[in-house]
Amino acid sequence: MTKELDATVFRNGFLNSFDFVLTDCDGNCTAVLMMLMAFRVLWNRNEAIPGAKETINALQDRGKTVIFVTNNSSKSRYEYHRKFEMLGFKASVDRIFPTSYCVAVYLKSIHFKKKVYVLGSSGIGDELYSAGIPFLPVGPDPMPEIEDWYNWVTNELELDSEVGAVVVGFDQHVSFPKLVKTVSYLKDPDCVYIATNVDEQFQTDLKHLVIPGTGAVIRAVETVCGRTPILLGKPAKFLYDCIKHQYPDLDPSKGIMIGDRLSTDILLGKSIGLRTLLVLTGVSDLDEVERCSNSNSENEQRMVPNYYLPSLADLGQLMGVIQ
Amino acid sequence: MTKELDATVFRNGFLNSFDFVLTDCDGNCTAVLMMLMAFRVLWNRNEAIPGAKETINALQDRGKTVIFVTNNSSKSRYEYHRKFEMLGFKASVDRIFPTSYCVAVYLKSIHFKKKVYVLGSSGIGDELYSAGIPFLPVGPDPMPEIEDWYNWVTNELELDSEVGAVVVGFDQHVSFPKLVKTVSYLKDPDCVYIATNVDEQFQTDLKHLVIPGTGAVIRAVETVCGRTPILLGKPAKFLYDCIKHQYPDLDPSKGIMIGDRLSTDILLGKSIGLRTLLVLTGVSDLDEVERCSNSNSENEQRMVPNYYLPSLADLGQLMGVIQ
Repeated sequence: MTKELDATVFRNGFLNSFDFVLTDCDGNCTAVLMMLMAFRVLWNRNEAIPGAKETINALQDRGKTVIFVTNNSSKSRYEYHRKFEMLGFKASVDRIFPTSYCVAVYLKSIHFKKKVYVLGSSGIGDELYSAGIPFLPVGPDPMPEIEDWYNWVTNELELDSEVGAVVVGFDQHVSFPKLVKTVSYLKDPDCVYIATNVDEQFQTDLKHLVIPGTGAVIRAVETVCGRTPILLGKPAKFLYDCIKHQYPDLDPSKGIMIGDRLSTDILLGKSIGLRTLLVLTGVSDLDEVERCSNSNSENEQRMVPNYYLPSLADLGQLMGVIQ
Repeated sequence: MTKELDATVFRNGFLNSFDFVLTDCDGNCTAVLMMLMAFRVLWNRNEAIPGAKETINALQDRGKTVIFVTNNSSKSRYEYHRKFEMLGFKASVDRIFPTSYCVAVYLKSIHFKKKVYVLGSSGIGDELYSAGIPFLPVGPDPMPEIEDWYNWVTNELELDSEVGAVVVGFDQHVSFPKLVKTVSYLKDPDCVYIATNVDEQFQTDLKHLVIPGTGAVIRAVETVCGRTPILLGKPAKFLYDCIKHQYPDLDPSKGIMIGDRLSTDILLGKSIGLRTLLVLTGVSDLDEVERCSNSNSENEQRMVPNYYLPSLADLGQLMGVIQ
C-alpha cells in the first residue's frame, strides 16, 4: 500500500532507512529538448524544480550516495555533469548513468570488437568514443532528392561489413536510409541489437503535439524483421547492473528509488529490491497508482510505490532545508 | 486441397468456370521501384514476365473481364495505365485498382469534406486531386539542421486545423516532422485514419538489404497513439468494394483471383468467395501452402489456393497462345 511521506513517516526513521538514492532526472528527451521541456523530477525547462536542488544536495550533506539515472541517451555523462553544475546540483560524473553510457558499458561487457551502427543521437556516439568502441557517424542521413530511390538504395546505399551491433535510441534525424540500414544490419542474427529505452512517446507540456519516442522505432523494426532488442534503460535491470559494476557494495535493502513514472522508475526500483518514492511532478498520478494497486497483473502490482510526495521540495521541507 | 492447374484440370472446363479475373500486378513498391524491382505476377524489372502479357491479353480475347489490383499506392490509375500500355498489356483505366485510388474512393464514400494529411507518395496525391479532395503537399519534409529541434517543433511545426484524415502509405521521405504530424493529427479521435496496406517489408531480389514496408510505420503509429487504421488494401475487402462499386454485377462465384502472396492475394480472393490461383513467380511457395494446409488457424486455412502454377505463362501454354 502506498502512503504519503508525511511528517509521521519522516520522523519514524525515514532518512535512516537508506544509504543511497537512485533518482530519475528528466523525461526521455534529447539534449536540446532537455533544455526546454517539462522535466519531471529534478528540473523543468532548464530550471531546477523549486526545492529539488536543495533537497538532493541536503541528502548528500547527510551522507547519502545520490545516483542519477535516466533513460535519455542524447547526452553523455560529461554533458549531464555540466548541466548539473549549471543548475547547482552536486553530482560527480561517476554518479550519473544515462543510457548513452550504458550502451558503452554493455558492449564492453560482451567484449564487443566490431563497429556499431547508431540510430540515435550524439550522446551515444560520445560514450562509444570515450570507451574506444568504433562506430559509424551519428547525425543526419537524409533521403536524397532523386528520381529513382530504388536504384539509389541498390547502388549507393552502402552497408559496412564490419558492423556487428545496432543501437536504437531517440533520433530526430530518423529517415528512410537509416531505417533501411538498421533492418538490413539486423538481418544478420549475429548482429547485436540494443535499445536505450522503449518509451512510446515523450511526455511534454505541448497540448497539440504528440512526439513519438524510441519505442515507436523499436516496434517498426520488430514488424520488419521480427527482432526485439536488449533493453538497457528502465525498467530493465541492466541500468542497475551498470551501477553495481561501479559500486559493487550497494545493498538494495539500503536504497530508495525516486521517480515520476510507475512503469519505468518505480518498476525498476521494485525489481531490484529498493524502496520507492513517487513524486507527482511528472507522468504518473495517484489515479494510476490506484489502478495498479487494484490490478490483477503481478507486473502492475510491482509498480505501486511505497511512498509518494507532491514534489521533491516536500522532502526538503521535512528535512528542514526548505521553508 | 491445392492442385496444380495441369492439362487435365484445364480441359475439364477451367476457362468456362469464370467470367472475370482479379490479378495482382507487382509487389508493394513505389513508382520508381516498380520500374526496377522483381515484380511478381505480371512484370519483372520493367519487362513483363515472359508469357504474362500474352496470357492476360488472351484471357481478355476470350471474353474475360480482367481487373488489375495492387496494394501499391505510389502510382495513380493513370500512371499504371501508361505502364500497362508500355508493356503491351491490354488494360483500361477503369479496370485498374491501386490503393491510391481506393483512398479517394473511401473518402468519397464517407462524404469527407476536410483536408487530408498524406504520409505517403504522389500516387495518393494524384488520386485525391482527381477526386477533388483537398490535401496537404506530398513529398519531402525533412528535419531541418538546427540546434534546437524541440524549439523548432514547438514554434515552427504547424498543424493545419482543417485536417480531418491521415493516410499512411509507403513513403521514402519518412522523417521526424512527418511522424510528429501524423501522430499529432491522430490525437483527435475524430480524425479518420487510413492505411493503404500493412505489408511488413518489400520483397526484393536484393540479398543484403531489407526494405521496410508501410506496415512498419503503421505499427510505430500504433505504439505512439494506440490507433489502428482502416485498411484499404489486400487482404481487406474494401478493395473489392471499390471494384463492386464500379462493376455492381460481378458474381463472386464466376471469378478467380490470381496472385503470388497467400496472406494478401489468396486470402482476399477466398474472403470474397472467388476461386484462387497462386503463381510461383513471387513471394509464396508450395512449402508455405503446405504449412497453411496443415495449420489449425482458420485464417491460414483460408490462404490455401485452389490452384497453383509455376507462372502465368503456363496458363498461356494451356490456352495455346504460348509455345
